Amino acid sequence: MREKFGPLVSEMTWVELRDAVLEGYGVILPIGTTEQHGPHLPLATDWLLPLAVARGAAARTKTVVAPPIVYGCRSRPLSGGGQGFPGTTSVRGSTLQRQIRDLVGEFIRSGFDQITVINWHLENRSFVYEGVDDGLQSAIRRGPRAIVMESVLQAIDRKDLDPMFPDGFPGFDVEHAAILETSLMLKLYPAMVRVDQIVDDEAARHPKYEMLPAPLDFIPASGILYRASLGTAEKGAKLYDLAVDAVVAAIDREFGTTP
Amino acid sequence: MREKFGPLVSEMTWVELRDAVLEGYGVILPIGTTEQHGPHLPLATDWLLPLAVARGAAARTKTVVAPPIVYGCRSRPLSGGGQGFPGTTSVRGSTLQRQIRDLVGEFIRSGFDQITVINWHLENRSFVYEGVDDGLQSAIRRGPRAIVMESVLQAIDRKDLDPMFPDGFPGFDVEHAAILETSLMLKLYPAMVRVDQIVDDEAARHPKYEMLPAPLDFIPASGILYRASLGTAEKGAKLYDLAVDAVVAAIDREFGTTP
Amino acid sequence: MREKFGPLVSEMTWVELRDAVLEGYGVILPIGTTEQHGPHLPLATDWLLPLAVARGAAARTKTVVAPPIVYGCRSRPLSGGGQGFPGTTSVRGSTLQRQIRDLVGEFIRSGFDQITVINWHLENRSFVYEGVDDGLQSAIRRGPRAIVMESVLQAIDRKDLDPMFPDGFPGFDVEHAAILETSLMLKLYPAMVRVDQIVDDEAARHPKYEMLPAPLDFIPASGILYRASLGTAEKGAKLYDLAVDAVVAAIDREFGTTP
Amino acid sequence: MREKFGPLVSEMTWVELRDAVLEGYGVILPIGTTEQHGPHLPLATDWLLPLAVARGAAARTKTVVAPPIVYGCRSRPLSGGGQGFPGTTSVRGSTLQRQIRDLVGEFIRSGFDQITVINWHLENRSFVYEGVDDGLQSAIRRGPRAIVMESVLQAIDRKDLDPMFPDGFPGFDVEHAAILETSLMLKLYPAMVRVDQIVDDEAARHPKYEMLPAPLDFIPASGILYRASLGTAEKGAKLYDLAVDAVVAAIDREFGTTP
Amino acid sequence: MREKFGPLVSEMTWVELRDAVLEGYGVILPIGTTEQHGPHLPLATDWLLPLAVARGAAARTKTVVAPPIVYGCRSRPLSGGGQGFPGTTSVRGSTLQRQIRDLVGEFIRSGFDQITVINWHLENRSFVYEGVDDGLQSAIRRGPRAIVMESVLQAIDRKDLDPMFPDGFPGFDVEHAAILETSLMLKLYPAMVRVDQIVDDEAARHPKYEMLPAPLDFIPASGILYRASLGTAEKGAKLYDLAVDAVVAAIDREFGTTP
Amino acid sequence: MREKFGPLVSEMTWVELRDAVLEGYGVILPIGTTEQHGPHLPLATDWLLPLAVARGAAARTKTVVAPPIVYGCRSRPLSGGGQGFPGTTSVRGSTLQRQIRDLVGEFIRSGFDQITVINWHLENRSFVYEGVDDGLQSAIRRGPRAIVMESVLQAIDRKDLDPMFPDGFPGFDVEHAAILETSLMLKLYPAMVRVDQIVDDEAARHPKYEMLPAPLDFIPASGILYRASLGTAEKGAKLYDLAVDAVVAAIDREFGTTP
Repeated sequence: MREKFGPLVSEMTWVELRDAVLEGYGVILPIGTTEQHGPHLPLATDWLLPLAVARGAAARTKTVVAPPIVYGCRSRPLSGGGQGFPGTTSVRGSTLQRQIRDLVGEFIRSGFDQITVINWHLENRSFVYEGVDDGLQSAIRRGPRAIVMESVLQAIDRKDLDPMFPDGFPGFDVEHAAILETSLMLKLYPAMVRVDQIVDDEAARHPKYEMLPAPLDFIPASGILYRASLGTAEKGAKLYDLAVDAVVAAIDREFGTTP
Repeated sequence: MREKFGPLVSEMTWVELRDAVLEGYGVILPIGTTEQHGPHLPLATDWLLPLAVARGAAARTKTVVAPPIVYGCRSRPLSGGGQGFPGTTSVRGSTLQRQIRDLVGEFIRSGFDQITVINWHLENRSFVYEGVDDGLQSAIRRGPRAIVMESVLQAIDRKDLDPMFPDGFPGFDVEHAAILETSLMLKLYPAMVRVDQIVDDEAARHPKYEMLPAPLDFIPASGILYRASLGTAEKGAKLYDLAVDAVVAAIDREFGTTP
Repeated sequence: MREKFGPLVSEMTWVELRDAVLEGYGVILPIGTTEQHGPHLPLATDWLLPLAVARGAAARTKTVVAPPIVYGCRSRPLSGGGQGFPGTTSVRGSTLQRQIRDLVGEFIRSGFDQITVINWHLENRSFVYEGVDDGLQSAIRRGPRAIVMESVLQAIDRKDLDPMFPDGFPGFDVEHAAILETSLMLKLYPAMVRVDQIVDDEAARHPKYEMLPAPLDFIPASGILYRASLGTAEKGAKLYDLAVDAVVAAIDREFGTTP
Repeated sequence: MREKFGPLVSEMTWVELRDAVLEGYGVILPIGTTEQHGPHLPLATDWLLPLAVARGAAARTKTVVAPPIVYGCRSRPLSGGGQGFPGTTSVRGSTLQRQIRDLVGEFIRSGFDQITVINWHLENRSFVYEGVDDGLQSAIRRGPRAIVMESVLQAIDRKDLDPMFPDGFPGFDVEHAAILETSLMLKLYPAMVRVDQIVDDEAARHPKYEMLPAPLDFIPASGILYRASLGTAEKGAKLYDLAVDAVVAAIDREFGTTP
Repeated sequence: MREKFGPLVSEMTWVELRDAVLEGYGVILPIGTTEQHGPHLPLATDWLLPLAVARGAAARTKTVVAPPIVYGCRSRPLSGGGQGFPGTTSVRGSTLQRQIRDLVGEFIRSGFDQITVINWHLENRSFVYEGVDDGLQSAIRRGPRAIVMESVLQAIDRKDLDPMFPDGFPGFDVEHAAILETSLMLKLYPAMVRVDQIVDDEAARHPKYEMLPAPLDFIPASGILYRASLGTAEKGAKLYDLAVDAVVAAIDREFGTTP
Repeated sequence: MREKFGPLVSEMTWVELRDAVLEGYGVILPIGTTEQHGPHLPLATDWLLPLAVARGAAARTKTVVAPPIVYGCRSRPLSGGGQGFPGTTSVRGSTLQRQIRDLVGEFIRSGFDQITVINWHLENRSFVYEGVDDGLQSAIRRGPRAIVMESVLQAIDRKDLDPMFPDGFPGFDVEHAAILETSLMLKLYPAMVRVDQIVDDEAARHPKYEMLPAPLDFIPASGILYRASLGTAEKGAKLYDLAVDAVVAAIDREFGTTP
């Protein structure tokens, strides 16, 4: 695994990290959450995946991977099942935003000039963007720049994704514990997938607005928002490559020497 | 205009509002921002439009329209041109979220049980959702419910929108000061559209991630993110009906007597 | 109306606003609230009035008028009837202060060097002052200055006001939905005044301190804190001129070329 | 002194305080600030005075006196000389408001049902009111009530004050380190008054609005905003009685048995 | 007393404080709280003691003493008896931290370059440190430095303390209303000690972790956490000298000319 | 490993977690930080250790282990080397406190009644305690209780620790990247220890107060605060057992059936 995964800040000493900074390394911060992902996927799915993507990208670029943010924003009924499931463990959006602000400031204090933030949990989106902005503005020096990829899956070209959906792409919001995430987990963390628990499910209603509190028919009982049974390790392998490619391409384009 | 526009909280007395509450009226809160919309549309575009939609919906449902929130979140380079344009006047996301929390609490204190929040400015999204949630949770009584429509345009059925884009739908993010908004303004506030200033523009680059600070080639010089020249009052009329229909349908479905 | 009302930021494009900044224009921010104003005046009274004054002042100075802040602080029992009336829709003081801080920062980013803040709702006072101070201190550049007029009516010379009160001036705190505001609304927004609902009222008790929660005898049932029947459009015309004069004089003195 | 000053929370044990609560005692919280008061009065003037008034009132009512809040809001140029003087030591308004919220909550947890807050430093006003409101709303039980006297001097009947101003009352804003405060300090804390430093002073300009940053001609060089030389211990004795009477009357009326 | 106590900011005029700054004086901020201290010590014990130490140190160094912070953090069951005692009057830690941040900023604005913060109430510790750090970082100029002594008693050399505990040192956490504090109060404020109420007490259990909410057997009924009867004025005199020496030594070492 | 390590929330599905809750399981939250630990230990040391202790305790009690908090408070010069080392990555104390408040609230919403928080990084202490308190007070139901162990090492009996220090116990503050942590890492994560980089170091000065900004002689160049060379895997094994025992004993005593 060492040859394909990039260096983890967690495993480095401060001396090694200092040397990486001096050699021009950047840092990737993976962001997810702890949230129900149906009866077959672990609660960590949303941070295990961006962590794996970050490590894949770090192996191909001059970057190190910071410890992931594992507690993200309140789950939405229509994109994560909402705050009713045991195990979903969230923070307020303002808490997440402050945490990201502080961390971006610290990356800059440590010497990093190139910061890449990749987020998985859709509910985190605006808080991630504003948190990075706040961090850059309150940092001890100007100059550092940040890539803010608020949805790794949405950074993949749709034409590459579409073949994975034989009945058509259902929308990213219902891609929760469904085809894409099940596929990726089957490939990357197969021991954690309870394959015998995989079911196809969907909400009785899925309107284009949220309700608070959420009506019960917005939320499938299993927590799977779409057809998990269509996930395969093969699709997962393909998806993982596409996701890593997207992050690597962004880093190359914005921080690299490519014109 | 009176016959087609619903009642404004601003114009009511407290006695009239109390009576409306007693008769079972709900309230709609339109949310937008003050932001550059190219050389041809006014800075108020993003709050004038949800205000008009709210009034249209209020005319067909038992609702009153609260004064719109006119100062929204920081503009993003890729969906609004960013914070570099004079006239774009934003608040921090946390400020917006607190304002919405407070207002939802006040609507409930005034007696409303049915709250509909419709947002236009995409950058506001997560802050709107969490703000409404915070407001419901800190309110003086349980029971009231809220519809949170974070993007009025995205609540319209895509099959109804597609015909407006002869060259294919370019994505909601670049629909800023472009076809849809120009069309709506031409229909609803024609005196405010500088038709001689309409141009087609787009960013040199439009990746699937944000950069902070934004590179110059992410932002078209005009502030128009796509082809404004394709906007027409006719499309605007159609769009307006679709938008009002979407809001009315949501209110009917969630708060009405329809099973 | 064009000749007597100054330009609204809402109606301008970003290009026009940029040009105004380059020509040395300043900006006026009117602040009010949404609050009960008796059975005869609309809930918007407290922001409609400073908006009108701002537009009058902008017509005579080199300034543009920003969209008003329409949701202000919690109403006090003794100066606005308190938070018990349906329709009174307030934000926490800290929310208002943050909003003003953000907006002042944005005016400065847009290029304005001369900011005039005029407030109507008395409860907003300290929050307005500290919000402007916070905004100036956190802005991206030093140099801009701000006029903070926390009460437009109190900026008028008392000797000019006294003739309007045949029985003596009762104090600004009870001038809520009473003589001055009724007069101004009769002049500026006559269609919104329910003249048949005008009554004279006052609280059974009006001590020189507040109580929380407020005793019922601090609050007149109508929401009118004094004798609304003494309001006339004539007084309103005179008052409006005095108010606009006060704002114009301040702008001339502080930002103009007068020695 | 014991016979004329009421009990201080600071000097009580928790057992004595518990017994006082059980006997139905209320609590007074004096609020001031640390602020320049000319060359003749100490920086503590604004909290020494409400503390003395509180103790006087406590001696005549069933109340104990909590330790005063000695650090209040930013000084205003027109009512305190502004933040330019060494020694003026302020907190943000939001800090003060949070402190008051916490303390009111704690008074209630300790068992007090009757809370009287008396403030001296005018700049604190709105923050005091909202802080008390926040404290009551977040307290562990409902029922307790609070008197909020935001300006002790302004709670005195004007007809009783006017005789102290031979040349007419100049307004409370300039009564800073001037006649009233000098008189009170001469009576209550004579050893702290540098009588040889008393001068008459005033700002070159004193408009009805604030400027940020403040022009130099808004601020008298001495920090005395009006004629300190007119202060006398005799006036101070009279004023002190009036101030204590105002607080006692409020407590009697709102918390006592008087009908 | 004048000869042995240093100057109080409270008693100085702004002119005197300015002159002290010009002469190179620093400032000491004593921090404590208002908290139960058994049936024999006043609620003010925790701020009276650091105030006395500060004054003693100021008499021997070039420093002035700012008004103490008298409302500190929530009391812990194991080090102060917890929030269950009437009279314990606390603020949230975040409130304390903001207050200290603001005050440090103001000391610097007033001109001080040498700030010494001495804290007594153990629960305040981390908030004091971060508050000072925040204040230095947000101050109007760089250069000033701060000593942060989070526990005056713990700054004393243990070998000097040990002789005071005939049965061995029991730990600083239970030194609440016990030997050290009783001794100091007997020496410094003897009139406030109810000597007939002194008892020996201790909690039935005193584990090495806190519980929330606290079990009753964590808290002694008296509020005395250890053997108060062993306190003597003699020990108090010795302790006071040791405490003042510790503060003086720190100031001399960090701000003085001693190598 | 399964037999000796307790279940991780991260690896569970929501169904499994729900079942655990129904069976009466509690939850342990390990808290640490990302901080320099000398040239021989990884930046993750402070969260790897409490995570291992939590897993050990969970294997022997009815508890699950939540994902650790890996970003803690600002490092102190005297107990962690301060904020000057690259790689030390901290959040503001208020950010940490909010995160813990939110998580405790979520544990309770998920159904847990027994919460154990174990912290390693000393700087987190007060923020951890107040965060848990805030979480319990704002949770959706009363009843749940929490153990707050702010320092796992300090929960071990000193008589068990002392034998590990042949030259006497130097204090917990300097036990950073020193004997205890090096020993534990050698035992628990030997592959991460750079044994060839182990050195003995200490600060030139280590006073009983902090300075801000910290003088250079407070901080050893290596980041090792004491004699790392005395660490051994044997001591680590012993320490680990003692630490797990301390947590298990607390859980048994407070949440178990032991009398």
